[in-house]
Amino acid sequence: MKPSSSTSELLEAPLFDSADVDAALADTALVAAMLETEAALAAAEAEAGVVPSEAADAIGRACRDLHPDPAELGREGASAGNPVPALVTRLTAAVPEDARRWVHHGATSQDILDTALMLVAKRATGVVVDRLDDCGDECAALADAHRDTLMVGRTLGQQAAPTTFGRKAAGWLVAFDDAATRLAQVRESRLAVQFGGAVGTLAMLGEQGQTVVEGLAGRLELCAPALPWHTDRSRVLDLVTAAAFSGVGCDKVAGDVVLMTQTEVGELTLADAGGSSAMPHKRNPVDAILVRAAARRLPGLVATVVAATDQEHERATGGWHAEWAPMRDVLRLVGGMAERTARMLGGLSVHAGRMRANLDHTGGLVMAEAVAARLKPTLGRTTADEVVARCAQAASASGKPFADALLADPEVSAQLNHDDVAAALEPTSWLGSAGPMVDRAVEAHRRRRG
Amino acid sequence: MKPSSSTSELLEAPLFDSADVDAALADTALVAAMLETEAALAAAEAEAGVVPSEAADAIGRACRDLHPDPAELGREGASAGNPVPALVTRLTAAVPEDARRWVHHGATSQDILDTALMLVAKRATGVVVDRLDDCGDECAALADAHRDTLMVGRTLGQQAAPTTFGRKAAGWLVAFDDAATRLAQVRESRLAVQFGGAVGTLAMLGEQGQTVVEGLAGRLELCAPALPWHTDRSRVLDLVTAAAFSGVGCDKVAGDVVLMTQTEVGELTLADAGGSSAMPHKRNPVDAILVRAAARRLPGLVATVVAATDQEHERATGGWHAEWAPMRDVLRLVGGMAERTARMLGGLSVHAGRMRANLDHTGGLVMAEAVAARLKPTLGRTTADEVVARCAQAASASGKPFADALLADPEVSAQLNHDDVAAALEPTSWLGSAGPMVDRAVEAHRRRRG
Amino acid sequence: MKPSSSTSELLEAPLFDSADVDAALADTALVAAMLETEAALAAAEAEAGVVPSEAADAIGRACRDLHPDPAELGREGASAGNPVPALVTRLTAAVPEDARRWVHHGATSQDILDTALMLVAKRATGVVVDRLDDCGDECAALADAHRDTLMVGRTLGQQAAPTTFGRKAAGWLVAFDDAATRLAQVRESRLAVQFGGAVGTLAMLGEQGQTVVEGLAGRLELCAPALPWHTDRSRVLDLVTAAAFSGVGCDKVAGDVVLMTQTEVGELTLADAGGSSAMPHKRNPVDAILVRAAARRLPGLVATVVAATDQEHERATGGWHAEWAPMRDVLRLVGGMAERTARMLGGLSVHAGRMRANLDHTGGLVMAEAVAARLKPTLGRTTADEVVARCAQAASASGKPFADALLADPEVSAQLNHDDVAAALEPTSWLGSAGPMVDRAVEAHRRRRG
Amino acid sequence: MKPSSSTSELLEAPLFDSADVDAALADTALVAAMLETEAALAAAEAEAGVVPSEAADAIGRACRDLHPDPAELGREGASAGNPVPALVTRLTAAVPEDARRWVHHGATSQDILDTALMLVAKRATGVVVDRLDDCGDECAALADAHRDTLMVGRTLGQQAAPTTFGRKAAGWLVAFDDAATRLAQVRESRLAVQFGGAVGTLAMLGEQGQTVVEGLAGRLELCAPALPWHTDRSRVLDLVTAAAFSGVGCDKVAGDVVLMTQTEVGELTLADAGGSSAMPHKRNPVDAILVRAAARRLPGLVATVVAATDQEHERATGGWHAEWAPMRDVLRLVGGMAERTARMLGGLSVHAGRMRANLDHTGGLVMAEAVAARLKPTLGRTTADEVVARCAQAASASGKPFADALLADPEVSAQLNHDDVAAALEPTSWLGSAGPMVDRAVEAHRRRRG
Repeated sequence: MKPSSSTSELLEAPLFDSADVDAALADTALVAAMLETEAALAAAEAEAGVVPSEAADAIGRACRDLHPDPAELGREGASAGNPVPALVTRLTAAVPEDARRWVHHGATSQDILDTALMLVAKRATGVVVDRLDDCGDECAALADAHRDTLMVGRTLGQQAAPTTFGRKAAGWLVAFDDAATRLAQVRESRLAVQFGGAVGTLAMLGEQGQTVVEGLAGRLELCAPALPWHTDRSRVLDLVTAAAFSGVGCDKVAGDVVLMTQTEVGELTLADAGGSSAMPHKRNPVDAILVRAAARRLPGLVATVVAATDQEHERATGGWHAEWAPMRDVLRLVGGMAERTARMLGGLSVHAGRMRANLDHTGGLVMAEAVAARLKPTLGRTTADEVVARCAQAASASGKPFADALLADPEVSAQLNHDDVAAALEPTSWLGSAGPMVDRAVEAHRRRRG
Repeated sequence: MKPSSSTSELLEAPLFDSADVDAALADTALVAAMLETEAALAAAEAEAGVVPSEAADAIGRACRDLHPDPAELGREGASAGNPVPALVTRLTAAVPEDARRWVHHGATSQDILDTALMLVAKRATGVVVDRLDDCGDECAALADAHRDTLMVGRTLGQQAAPTTFGRKAAGWLVAFDDAATRLAQVRESRLAVQFGGAVGTLAMLGEQGQTVVEGLAGRLELCAPALPWHTDRSRVLDLVTAAAFSGVGCDKVAGDVVLMTQTEVGELTLADAGGSSAMPHKRNPVDAILVRAAARRLPGLVATVVAATDQEHERATGGWHAEWAPMRDVLRLVGGMAERTARMLGGLSVHAGRMRANLDHTGGLVMAEAVAARLKPTLGRTTADEVVARCAQAASASGKPFADALLADPEVSAQLNHDDVAAALEPTSWLGSAGPMVDRAVEAHRRRRG
Repeated sequence: MKPSSSTSELLEAPLFDSADVDAALADTALVAAMLETEAALAAAEAEAGVVPSEAADAIGRACRDLHPDPAELGREGASAGNPVPALVTRLTAAVPEDARRWVHHGATSQDILDTALMLVAKRATGVVVDRLDDCGDECAALADAHRDTLMVGRTLGQQAAPTTFGRKAAGWLVAFDDAATRLAQVRESRLAVQFGGAVGTLAMLGEQGQTVVEGLAGRLELCAPALPWHTDRSRVLDLVTAAAFSGVGCDKVAGDVVLMTQTEVGELTLADAGGSSAMPHKRNPVDAILVRAAARRLPGLVATVVAATDQEHERATGGWHAEWAPMRDVLRLVGGMAERTARMLGGLSVHAGRMRANLDHTGGLVMAEAVAARLKPTLGRTTADEVVARCAQAASASGKPFADALLADPEVSAQLNHDDVAAALEPTSWLGSAGPMVDRAVEAHRRRRG
Repeated sequence: MKPSSSTSELLEAPLFDSADVDAALADTALVAAMLETEAALAAAEAEAGVVPSEAADAIGRACRDLHPDPAELGREGASAGNPVPALVTRLTAAVPEDARRWVHHGATSQDILDTALMLVAKRATGVVVDRLDDCGDECAALADAHRDTLMVGRTLGQQAAPTTFGRKAAGWLVAFDDAATRLAQVRESRLAVQFGGAVGTLAMLGEQGQTVVEGLAGRLELCAPALPWHTDRSRVLDLVTAAAFSGVGCDKVAGDVVLMTQTEVGELTLADAGGSSAMPHKRNPVDAILVRAAARRLPGLVATVVAATDQEHERATGGWHAEWAPMRDVLRLVGGMAERTARMLGGLSVHAGRMRANLDHTGGLVMAEAVAARLKPTLGRTTADEVVARCAQAASASGKPFADALLADPEVSAQLNHDDVAAALEPTSWLGSAGPMVDRAVEAHRRRRG
């Protein structure tokens, strides 16, 4: 296939997107979903006695057989401001004369396009939830395997106190479980059909309005809304914010991975690290970098969807049209992020030795809090902190181990002997609830995954 | 009170904010919430046997008695990057010597500030939910009172087909009920205490970590999280997006009000319309304008909170600090929007005569869809549409009523007589489900409001 | 051509983009620009004596002959995080053995992609500037033709005081001239080649670094930067913000057009107004609506580019990759906006009669300021304003002309007789500098357009 | 001073803002600027013969003597939607009876508030430019002092190839010089008075409109615009984007500082590093973290100002009001960022020994590109790269120095002896144009600073 002379997503899609999600959201899929909506509408109207069943059947057949070119629909749709009229023209021409008046019966363009967008979103989010669960599974495995793998915890960019890699992975895990749960909920409870007619009153349907809405929803396995939502865009906003949460979880992992794979840190390496022809020693964490790049685009896209909720009167003068691209962009990006993060997590090499070496990098200073905790009962909080700070400074200045500085300090040595100091400096003694936190997160994940 | 020489919110707060929400979120309230957190922490630790109860009691008393100046805390906090250490210093100094080592026991600054922010958010969102319910009540009253008040529905900026003002108000109502429900849910289920210590392991608490977390949560009536959420900011994002939904509902009303109060439209006027000294005839819809101004700021603030979720390792290098202002700004703005919208809705004058006159503005053209519907059974869809379009054009060109143009057309007059045309042009015959939609929305609101 | 199963821009591009700009920015154009950059680099290096001229010639020939499929480059580029290595592999294979070591000599992927993006941006912005000038020409013609066409000025959504349609068009014109000037300046002075090698030191080039940079810039007709700008993204930000300014000008026109084409206002109609099959009377201002939809996406895209400037060390971990899509999206949208706005302006029907009728809608109240101005010398400011407000209210309440209310008021009639009131209420007397403003704006535009 | 019960900026301003910039932008300063504008307007109108000079003098005196409470103006302004009418009421009351009709003559609220905002922005940006120049001076000093201080360049988070700290500082420097130049230009050429009257025609001024505009501009040392810019907000957008550029430069430094102060990297420490009572060994780069936090807020604020440019008709229904807060917020944040960055740069300790140790961390692998360059003439590009990659891998696997792996490889040792390898691995031989780039950047800075 020769690429279109104006396409600008071929170079980037493989870097940022998920092929499965892209297929679910592609123009061809969206056009197919519009036709599916027209077919289901005719069928629901037939069931409600509004449309003759033969007409509905004919419309249904035509919808299955039509495969219009999205590029053509786009070009023809420019004068109406959306591609639905051009599609309806084709569909009308494709049914027998006596069924034509029942095509698109009682609907407005927005009814069809909104419903089709919800349909493709339902399929796309199904893939995303699966990929998030893959991420969760990988995190659970890492948390379990490294429940007791010591490493240093870092705050404000600095080494702070000991933790475990399992605890870190458990933190990632909780975010994936939350994100998957949330996205699945929105998928089930908020993706709805749109059907309101020209001004949201279903004028053409007489008394049968809500019956048809429910029939349409049942056929398409989407929710039936209480009222048409032509200018109440909270469903789109729900979808996009829930999707963004998924991206946030991936970005957190990617950010930590970029920092932990730094040459000087070296605690993780990726199976699929990218090479550099010019610099053969490099192991670029390409998946993490692409996830982070995608994450940078989410705030602006979410903001656009928030701003686009401003929709006038019965149908809007631009706000609606402004949603289409960012809505699909968010789902495409989030799909790619989740897929790439799952693969990255599955291929992580965890270097426990390097983690331990980094934990020891400061010669014990990261245990200062633990030492102060031992001194507080006798010295009081303020003095204990001052003494420990003094010893930490002495150790830093001299380059000697923190233990030596502590034992050389008369106020410390009056309280703690060599074994006390060794015990205070033992990282495994200062992990608090890290282990139980891991167990809790993994257990919750297993319950969720059934 | 003399304003600070550097304050820049005095001029604007009365225009955009709600005084009640501002009071709940103010610096003084936030500092008080930090002290409340320290007191509850000491009490929960005492209950878990970690801290002596006398110490906890002393800390509790000191927390109640301390009223530090936020400006001073801010200045002193600049070197640490947050105001908690300066507060802890004051609190430590305010308790007896033997209680001092138990102040802030096992906590990190972020534990205190995050929990305090959740506390003030809980209070602020309580006010916002009430104001949203006020908006819903007003919309329900309008929908009920104007269930059958005819007006023209407008799409893409143009008159389209008849609807009722009740139907429009029902659309607003559904959005308020959704927003209030959502915000109340987040308020109950997502606002949680933060307690993790330096690196999220609760190292200082030994085995008692989760017990203290739950005790703290119970005392502060916030949720107990499964794990500390120092770098998992989905709770903040939930709060901010749910708040933004509230703003979206207000902005929709304000946007419609601005359009309906236009001089040439004149369907609504506001009780509190702003005058202009230079132009005494003007009735500026000031409340609507201020709501719309506030709404313009929400997308950027939401985007900032999405972007700030990128938080490194165990505690972040800037992302956390970046949340504070937009989180409070969103709640402040949304509080003001909901308060102002409720007041505006309560003071709306609805000009049914003008609505009817505008509906008649096109001489019946807005009923074209209804006329075509009558012709389709005999003429078929394509011909019916063509005939109606031809008559519409003839009416527009000549300035005559649409009825005359229809009756003058041989293809129409072969099908429809004068009474048929009159019936087809009767707006009340073309309202579809508008009435039942109003009833459904009002009924749902009444159930919600119990 | 069968569309790709994953493409999602075919339906939307014809609605929002400019075909010319899209062609300049398309993947095929970008790949061609990368090859153009490799060729120019080899030539510049040959000129500087770094690369043998035969090798440079061979590379140049291969660059002209290669037409790789962007989709393939994208797929292969996923492992490196960008498509350049895959392109270099192809290019290397396409040159004779002894020229191979000189392919991509001293360059890093980012050098090639950044330079290629600047090249395509230069072409795209050339089109945009032309379209902005088209907009300016149309506005100048409207301003000139309607220099004295009376209409009502509207503020805060309300009729305020008289102005002219020429004055309004002059305001649009100034914005287009500003935007075109600014974008042309950025185009000339800020679009630069990128060449720094692996870490921005041009290590491979020895002493010849800056010479090659300048040779490259000369060949590609881009600027030569003082230093490589791998992580200093102000050029991209300049480009995107200048482009956004263009969009702002279009959006202002589109917003005014949407309001002025409202059925109840009717001051403008568009040549290409979109019809509605269901509502044949409708004249949807589709071009204006699509411009407004595009405008809604600009803030989020600009924000993304601002956020993406955060780029670490010598080359970034995601920020760079995050720029590509929003940078192209902004230019594509702005191109479409300018093209569509120019067409819309060229096809505007201006209904001077309706403008005058709307100006008279309030029965003279919009002249209140002018009346008060006549009374102030004798009554003083406060009394004059009060008296006018009282008469305005009386006129509103009774539905009578403002003139009658004024003449019926003893305080007014003591100062002004019937002719004075008529003169005060004459809109042409209250246009201030509207005419000279039009003349000034049109004259400046003519100077600019030479 | 007791803080207001609803103020929410006291805790944060000292962390994020500059006291000087805050003072320039504070409510009190803004109110003073409004009065300054009213005084200058009266004086300019007197000079143009529109207003009696005694009246102008009286107004000028009253403007100097009035010091209204911003909080009161805010409260009273809520009904008009802005504080100007309440100010004008006070000002009118403060002048003698016969001067009253000349107060605010011909002006609309937006004229006064826009001009006052430009005035305070002029003062605030003056401070910001100075702070950016401080940053530039510090960078120039660092670049000069460390022109030849070796360190490793890092790309995609990985060590890549040698550079110098001087080269890095030169990159920062160029960004500050650009930002300062750009902001100073906007300050001089784009900050303009606003004066258009009710609908932008200067109706009240008859023929004297432009004369008064120019007189007003001259008095306030702002630009005189060609037309009023009530709904053409490109000046505000220029101001905000130029300010954002300044923030971008600061954020780049802060980001690099956070990474270079990581415990495992240790190449820089800050003079004002924040301590942690619980972890006395920590040296938190608080200034860098606060700068990064502020930077996270800029994209959303810029986006808000872009979105707010959508302003209807002659004066807007919310867009204008939405600008005030983000415009001041951006300047406040950028002021704080520049001040904090200058201080941080002035207090940097540069650890050249640690830089060198990190450069040697990979045992020479970062010189792979240099080795390959030596092999290409004889082995050709592809083979040379393969050989070097093979040796790099061998060195990594065995943990031995890269030199040993190279000499052990027969293909390498056939080309290079021990001395050749040592020379190829010498970082100083592979710095390309780093030194001249430093010189060029420093020289340009010195020219700029005169």
